[in-house]
Amino acid sequence: MVRIEHIGIAVKDLDKANALFQKLFGTPSYKEEVVDSEHVTTSFFGIGPNKVELLQAGAPESAIAKYIDRKGEGIHHIAFEVDDILAEMERLESEGFELINKAPKKGADNKLVCFLHPKSTNGVLVELCQEVKA
Amino acid sequence: MVRIEHIGIAVKDLDKANALFQKLFGTPSYKEEVVDSEHVTTSFFGIGPNKVELLQAGAPESAIAKYIDRKGEGIHHIAFEVDDILAEMERLESEGFELINKAPKKGADNKLVCFLHPKSTNGVLVELCQEVKA
Repeated sequence: MVRIEHIGIAVKDLDKANALFQKLFGTPSYKEEVVDSEHVTTSFFGIGPNKVELLQAGAPESAIAKYIDRKGEGIHHIAFEVDDILAEMERLESEGFELINKAPKKGADNKLVCFLHPKSTNGVLVELCQEVKA
Repeated sequence: MVRIEHIGIAVKDLDKANALFQKLFGTPSYKEEVVDSEHVTTSFFGIGPNKVELLQAGAPESAIAKYIDRKGEGIHHIAFEVDDILAEMERLESEGFELINKAPKKGADNKLVCFLHPKSTNGVLVELCQEVKA
């Protein structure tokens, strides 16, 4: 794994959270993006080589809405950049980790992503992500 | 803020978690360290410019033990490296964030640290850390 690509934070109100995290980081969100497949609206902040992604549910069936109902707002997942997502998925599955999606899917920010089930990772929702190459 | 310095993950059994995260990252923990002031034993993994810190409670009064009782194992905090922790603490307090410790304290890994209360940061326990200069 190359680095922590981003930390995902579940929020109820993206506009309020954007204002709060702008104060925290001393820099504004550099983009917002709707991810239809996940029913979320995302907002990204850059912190050196890393990012923070705020996530607001766009529908009650969104995983983010369910997460907030169960655990409240806060850190939702950690995403690691990988060079070869297919190779990492194969390696991790053979090590006993449970892949939530068996094929990479299109995530926010021009990435192919795969999530590992928290029950196989000590309660941590882990995302693998690889930049989509042109 | 310079980068995500580390993500802290609360675990019940550090030996088991070390073995699990070694499989996840494909690399072993590079050090363990007891932090007496926090009643925790920590273990660090390097992922490019970032780290993951596993935290096991050393006593029932440890914040980690209380966290696991309340929320279960999982991501506990996010730490950002800063160049000047005193200046950042002053800036953030003036922006309305609540500092848990009013003076920097010695954390793991040769750092001066300060925590921000999650009630002022959208449910996220944020740590500021600055390398102790020789």
